[in-house]
Amino acid sequence: MQMLDIGVCLPGFKAGGLRNGKFGVSIILAENECSYCGVYTRNSVKAAPIRIMLEHEGPLRGLLGNSGNANCCNLQGVDDALEIRQAAAHSLGVAPRLLGVASTGIIGRRIDAEKYSEEFQKAAGKIGESPEDSDKAAKGLMTTDTYPKMTCHEEEGLMVGGICKGAGMIDPSMATMLCFLTTNADIKQKQMQKILSEVVDETFNMVVTDGDMSTNDTVMLISDNSVDANPETFRKVLHATCLELAKMIAFDGEGATKKITVTVEGAETEKDARKAVLAIARSNLVKTAFYGCNPNWGRIMGAVGSVLDVDWTKITITYKSGARAYNIVEKGRGNDLEPAEQLLKENELTLIVDLDMGGKSATGYTCDLTQEYIRINAEYS
Amino acid sequence: MQMLDIGVCLPGFKAGGLRNGKFGVSIILAENECSYCGVYTRNSVKAAPIRIMLEHEGPLRGLLGNSGNANCCNLQGVDDALEIRQAAAHSLGVAPRLLGVASTGIIGRRIDAEKYSEEFQKAAGKIGESPEDSDKAAKGLMTTDTYPKMTCHEEEGLMVGGICKGAGMIDPSMATMLCFLTTNADIKQKQMQKILSEVVDETFNMVVTDGDMSTNDTVMLISDNSVDANPETFRKVLHATCLELAKMIAFDGEGATKKITVTVEGAETEKDARKAVLAIARSNLVKTAFYGCNPNWGRIMGAVGSVLDVDWTKITITYKSGARAYNIVEKGRGNDLEPAEQLLKENELTLIVDLDMGGKSATGYTCDLTQEYIRINAEYS
Repeated sequence: MQMLDIGVCLPGFKAGGLRNGKFGVSIILAENECSYCGVYTRNSVKAAPIRIMLEHEGPLRGLLGNSGNANCCNLQGVDDALEIRQAAAHSLGVAPRLLGVASTGIIGRRIDAEKYSEEFQKAAGKIGESPEDSDKAAKGLMTTDTYPKMTCHEEEGLMVGGICKGAGMIDPSMATMLCFLTTNADIKQKQMQKILSEVVDETFNMVVTDGDMSTNDTVMLISDNSVDANPETFRKVLHATCLELAKMIAFDGEGATKKITVTVEGAETEKDARKAVLAIARSNLVKTAFYGCNPNWGRIMGAVGSVLDVDWTKITITYKSGARAYNIVEKGRGNDLEPAEQLLKENELTLIVDLDMGGKSATGYTCDLTQEYIRINAEYS
Repeated sequence: MQMLDIGVCLPGFKAGGLRNGKFGVSIILAENECSYCGVYTRNSVKAAPIRIMLEHEGPLRGLLGNSGNANCCNLQGVDDALEIRQAAAHSLGVAPRLLGVASTGIIGRRIDAEKYSEEFQKAAGKIGESPEDSDKAAKGLMTTDTYPKMTCHEEEGLMVGGICKGAGMIDPSMATMLCFLTTNADIKQKQMQKILSEVVDETFNMVVTDGDMSTNDTVMLISDNSVDANPETFRKVLHATCLELAKMIAFDGEGATKKITVTVEGAETEKDARKAVLAIARSNLVKTAFYGCNPNWGRIMGAVGSVLDVDWTKITITYKSGARAYNIVEKGRGNDLEPAEQLLKENELTLIVDLDMGGKSATGYTCDLTQEYIRINAEYS
């Protein structure tokens, strides 16, 4: 498998986008009709674009995203979204029902349909097929992200490209993530949907969500079905692209200074391992300890014990950075703190918790919790 | 019912405590043998004192608490706790098995049994029956609390007094709370245990925990059974004391600048109402918005929708402070933000979310999330 620097701009796909202050728009357009599948938030309060997509049937030609307004809890939301889509579709020369839609931004304010229509019309005139165009589409989705996120993986001509935006990461149940994926893999729609749902669980849901998602979370995939595909190869390439995007989201958490990978090993079931990973990765106390380079491993024990029935006297906890590793706890016995304090000064860290209860494991991704996070979220509106 | 300024120092009970840097100790001692009941963390990683208390049977004469070390994830923890208890019991002139034990502080470091034994011995020589002695016992439990917490309620001679310590409040699943209660109510032990468990659910669990508790959470109640008691009166007085202590804990969250009461009305069941209250009260995004005086009500909708299947177009959201109230959302329709921004500048606020789905309600207590919280928890060790 190789990584390509083209984002969503696979052969036959164009992209573009722009930002105008808070108004960001993002467009992907395929030359041919595409099959489509999507994974959406399970929050019962769903944004208007998601309500539109959940009723959508049939092919798509492209995807539209906007940042700056979530178009959620807006009584005119569906009408507003359809009005914006109509304007964009007109400029792109396609039927409105062939465009998927997604929004991110503040909840509960009416979206300015006229303004966003204008921005989409401007962006529609400038879409192109270069990596820079994919980059513009990624930038159009950004809210508090510090950089645009895109990647593409390829094996045997089968490609999956993606752009995404993340956020907060600290209360994963509320941080909105949007991801737009393109592929050329010729896979039956039902099978593609099944594989996408599984891969989202293994990647984005190990950083962003655990079933209780934000009002706007969206992953949409369109395929022009131009390349014969083995489902296993498709799954592998899709997984690689989604995992890379998921890690970018995790590590670009608001105000973050450290990239933290959390692995739980020795669990009885994979579900248990995932639960423990998410309990650790979601703990404010664990995340502030990382920020303070503070090897407060008791907080890790407490997080694991809050969701699983464990025997802490069997647990081993290891901090790793690059080639260096240090067992801060061995079978419940704490070791000297000083070497851990040194290791925790690194910016890329892996935390390994071995439960010694079985053979299953899981990995998730997060960042530290900093004062800058509070500043961003106290002021964000 | 009246409030008394005596804390746990009911007639027949003495108290005391001291602080020596990080080492805090707290003692309650009754003249006569007491019946006892307790509610402990459901975290599978349990501190040594809790493991001791879960095996305890029979009466107690008093309670011992320490702050500065949680005595959790310490392989010698039970032996250490028994050694400290023995030293304290010797100084108090009672059998060690007649003293309940609890600890709070950092997890995963061995407790200094010799040092704590000395501190208990010093404190044991100075216990007394005045409100100031109860205050000293409350101070002995403090970690990051900004003030000692105690209260006592009385009706028809039936009294329930209490001291407690709280913490964090932001990740309720990890913040340790300890509460020591004394009463004179003559209630059968089994019934007393049942009433205590229910009252803890209605009070402390609406601020501190939702079933996934910290490794050290402890509520212990001792009664000298000296006053004939109607169970309903006992429940009422116990509830009043626990609720007041719970609110003190909530409002004294680390770094907090605002006291926030959250009420969810119009729920189908009380369980649903509690779930929604806790989802709101636990949301970092909601809590940072309060810190920023930012009426970002979409975050409240998102929190509710993450745990309940709601129709947001029926939801009404009200901010209240004292006699002033403002509906920021009426049946899904957002109102002007400016009056809400003014109201949110107040330090004591009530948030009311009416789901319009039924007749049940619940109330919980929390505080805002501030940069000071991060500083405290990055450095705490």
